[in-house]
Amino acid sequence: MSYNPSTSLSPSFVNQIPSFLTGEDSPRELLERYISVIQARDNEVRAFVDLNLDGARSSADASSKRYAEGKPISPIDGLPIGIKDIIETKDMPTQCGSPIYKGHQSGRDAPVSAALRRGGAVIVGKTATTEFAYGNVMATTNPFDSDRTPGTSSSGSAASVGAGMIPVAIGTQLMSSVMRPASYCGQVGVKPTYGAIRQAGIHPFSPSGEHVGAHASSLADAWAVLRFLSHEAGPVPGSHGIVGPDKLPAANKPVKLIRMYTPGWEISNADVKSSFETALERLESAGVEIVEPSSLPSLQLLEDYFSRVEWCIAEIAAFEMRWPFFEYEAAGYTHHPRISNLLSRAHEVTLSDYHKALEFKSRLKEHFLGLSNEFDGIVGLTAPEVAPVGLENLGHPVNCSPATCMGAPSLTLPLLVANDMPLGLQLIDFHNEDASLFSKAAWVNNFLQK
Amino acid sequence: MSYNPSTSLSPSFVNQIPSFLTGEDSPRELLERYISVIQARDNEVRAFVDLNLDGARSSADASSKRYAEGKPISPIDGLPIGIKDIIETKDMPTQCGSPIYKGHQSGRDAPVSAALRRGGAVIVGKTATTEFAYGNVMATTNPFDSDRTPGTSSSGSAASVGAGMIPVAIGTQLMSSVMRPASYCGQVGVKPTYGAIRQAGIHPFSPSGEHVGAHASSLADAWAVLRFLSHEAGPVPGSHGIVGPDKLPAANKPVKLIRMYTPGWEISNADVKSSFETALERLESAGVEIVEPSSLPSLQLLEDYFSRVEWCIAEIAAFEMRWPFFEYEAAGYTHHPRISNLLSRAHEVTLSDYHKALEFKSRLKEHFLGLSNEFDGIVGLTAPEVAPVGLENLGHPVNCSPATCMGAPSLTLPLLVANDMPLGLQLIDFHNEDASLFSKAAWVNNFLQK
Repeated sequence: MSYNPSTSLSPSFVNQIPSFLTGEDSPRELLERYISVIQARDNEVRAFVDLNLDGARSSADASSKRYAEGKPISPIDGLPIGIKDIIETKDMPTQCGSPIYKGHQSGRDAPVSAALRRGGAVIVGKTATTEFAYGNVMATTNPFDSDRTPGTSSSGSAASVGAGMIPVAIGTQLMSSVMRPASYCGQVGVKPTYGAIRQAGIHPFSPSGEHVGAHASSLADAWAVLRFLSHEAGPVPGSHGIVGPDKLPAANKPVKLIRMYTPGWEISNADVKSSFETALERLESAGVEIVEPSSLPSLQLLEDYFSRVEWCIAEIAAFEMRWPFFEYEAAGYTHHPRISNLLSRAHEVTLSDYHKALEFKSRLKEHFLGLSNEFDGIVGLTAPEVAPVGLENLGHPVNCSPATCMGAPSLTLPLLVANDMPLGLQLIDFHNEDASLFSKAAWVNNFLQK
Repeated sequence: MSYNPSTSLSPSFVNQIPSFLTGEDSPRELLERYISVIQARDNEVRAFVDLNLDGARSSADASSKRYAEGKPISPIDGLPIGIKDIIETKDMPTQCGSPIYKGHQSGRDAPVSAALRRGGAVIVGKTATTEFAYGNVMATTNPFDSDRTPGTSSSGSAASVGAGMIPVAIGTQLMSSVMRPASYCGQVGVKPTYGAIRQAGIHPFSPSGEHVGAHASSLADAWAVLRFLSHEAGPVPGSHGIVGPDKLPAANKPVKLIRMYTPGWEISNADVKSSFETALERLESAGVEIVEPSSLPSLQLLEDYFSRVEWCIAEIAAFEMRWPFFEYEAAGYTHHPRISNLLSRAHEVTLSDYHKALEFKSRLKEHFLGLSNEFDGIVGLTAPEVAPVGLENLGHPVNCSPATCMGAPSLTLPLLVANDMPLGLQLIDFHNEDASLFSKAAWVNNFLQK
C-alpha cells in the first residue's frame, strides 16, 4: 500500500458520532469495518501482539445501545482503540516486549486503560512495543512499505493507525516514541505537556521524562481522547492536565513561529528538506512569520540547548531506570545493548549527576518559556528522514527529543511526503498550552491540506 | 511497660557500627537481641503482620561477614528494619491491611525495599497498616499502654520501634501517618521534603501528597536510612532528594523559630500544653527566639492557611484516589466509611476542583518559603494529645497536616511527656533543607535531654 496523504487516513471517529445518534451507523458496525482491515492487513503489519475481539464486540454493542438511546457516556464512547503493550490491561497480558513478561497478566487496568473503559471506548488489542520501550524491536512493519520500520518504540500503535486498523492508539514517549513513528506511519501524533496523563500501571523507564500520547487518524480524535484521559485518568499527580473544550478547539492561525533545525537538519536529504521548506513557504505566503534561529541570540541559544537534550534525557533515565532494571539484572536477565549500555551508566550515576541533568532541563524550560511573549511556538520536522529501510534501523529521535526534554506539548501532522513516504510536520507550544497547540495545528492542517 | 523517655528507646543502630567492625558485636547478634524483644512483646503489641526471621538471619549473617572483613556496603548495612505493609516486598506478602490483598504476593520489591536490600539492611518483617493507610484499623496496640492506639496509619511501624522490637521502620504519610504514631509511641519520626524518596511499588492513595518516612530510635538512624534511600531508591522522579553527609549532620542551634498552634491547640489538655510550653521556655532560656504568630501578619496568615490544609489534602486525595479505588468499587468491594466517604467525593470532584486545591497548596508553599530569610523553621506539638484510649480512637492529624500539605520536611522528637505517655515535639524546616532540619533537631534534642 503506497502512501497517499489525502486518502491514506481512516475517517475521523468523532465525525461519525452524529450517524451513531441517528441510527444510520453504530459503534458495532464501525468496529466490524476496522476488524475487516485488521484481518486484511495485520498478517503483514504485525501491529498487534494481542487482540480481544470478543471483548471489543461486547463493548461496541454496549456502546451502540447507549447511542441508540441517545445517551453516550463520553466523547469517546464507542471509539475503537489500541493500547501500547507496556500499559496494563486486566483482560489482556501486558508483555512489555520482553521475555521477562511473556504471557504476564497483571490482572488490573492502568489508570489509562480503566479510564478508557469507563468512557465506553472499545479496546481492540495491545499494540507492539520495543522491549520496555527501549530495547529489542518487534516484527511490526511500516504499513506503507513492509521493508521499512514503523518507527519505535510505539511501533504497533503507529502501524495500526497508519494501516487504518484502528482510528486511535495510545503510545508513550521518552525521546521520540510517539512522534517519530507517527511521522513514519503518516498520522497525527501527540505528546502533550509533561504530566498531562497519569503514568501508573505503565512499565517505567524514566518517569520524569515519559509522556502518554496518542496516535490518531485526525486531530479531532487525538484531542478527544487526550482531553478525556487527562480528566478521567487524571494527570500525573500534582500536574495540571489538559483543559479546554470537549471538542477540538477552533482553528487559529499562528502569527509567529520559531523555525527549529536541531542537529537532525544536517542529516536530512534534499527531498525531506524541500518538502519542509515548501510547507514553510506556503505558511509564509499566508502571513505566518517564520523566524530563523540565526536571527536572534535567544533562538540560537535554544538550538544550542536542543543539541544537548539527548544527553540530558539519557542521564536522567540512567538514574531513574535503576528500578526496576537493577532487579532484572540481579535476577540474571540480559537486555538489548541499548538497554544494557544505559544500565552500565545507571551503576555509576549519582544523585549529584542527576541534579546536574535536572538543572539543565529546568534552565532549558525557563529559557523556552521566556520566548512565549514573542512567539506562538515552534515549527519543525518531526524526523530528519522518512521511515528507514530495515526493521532494525531506528532512524533518529533528534527532532523530537527537544519537546520531550522541555516537557512542552508537541504534535506531528501527516502533511509532508518525501521519497514517496509520509513525513510529519511538527508543532511545539508552551507548557500547558495544549488547547492552543491544537488550535494552531487545526489551522495549519486545514491550510496546508488545501 | 510504662513510658520513660530516658530509657524507653532502644540504642541507636549507627552507634553500634564500631563494635561490628572490632568484632565485639555483629549484626547477627544484634538481630537476635531484637528477635528476643519481638518474641517477648509482639503478642501484645501486634506490630508485625508478617515476619521473615529466616530471611533476616541470613541477611544478618551476610552483613556480619562483611563487617568481619571490614567491608560494610552502606551506612545501613546490618540495620534491622520493618517495612509498612503497603510497600511491596518480594519475599513477603503485601496485604495493605485490606481483604482485597489478603495473602497477595506481588513478587517484586518496591524501590524502597530493593534499595534497603542492596544496602545490606536486614528486613525483619512487614508492619501493620490501616486499610490502604486510610480505612479500617489493625489490632496493633500502643507499646506503652495496650488500651491505647499506637496511632495510624503506620501503626505497626511506630509500635515496633516504640516497643524496641526494631530500631527503624519505614512508614508513609499523607496527613499524619508517620509523625502522629511516632509521637504516640515515643520515638523519632521523620517526614522528609515531599518527593525525597520514590513511591513506586507503594499502594497509592494520593501520590502528590504521600511521603515515605522513617520511625527510628534515634535521629542518627533516621538520617542514615532516609539519606541512603534518597540516593539508592532515588527521589520521586524529577525531585531533588536528600543531600548531606553520610552521618547525622552536626548539631546547630536554631536562632528564630515560628511557634505553630494549628486548630489542635484548642483541643490540647493542660498537661499537654504545659509540657510543650515548658520545652519552649527552656529553648528560650538558651537564646532560641520563639516568635508568636499573633506578633506578625505573615505568621497569622500562615496559621490561617494551616486551618484549611486538611480540606486541601482531602480534595486532592479525592481526585487522585479514583485509581485504583474506582476499580475496587467496580469489583464490588466496600471499604471503611473513612474511605467510602472520600470515594463519594471522588465521584464528584473535577479537574477544575483539583486545580483549586493544587493552587491553595502552591500559594501556601510560596508563603512559607517567603519566611525562610527571617526564620529557621517552625516548632510545634506533633499531636494535640497523647495516644487516645481505644484502638478505634484515631486522635487528630491537625498538627501534622500543615507540613504534609506544604511538602516541607518535618520531624518529631520524643522529648515530651504528658499524662504519663510520650508526646512529640515537632520541628518543620523549609523545602529541601532536610539536612538543616536534622542539624537543628540534633541541637534541640541534645539540649532538652539534658
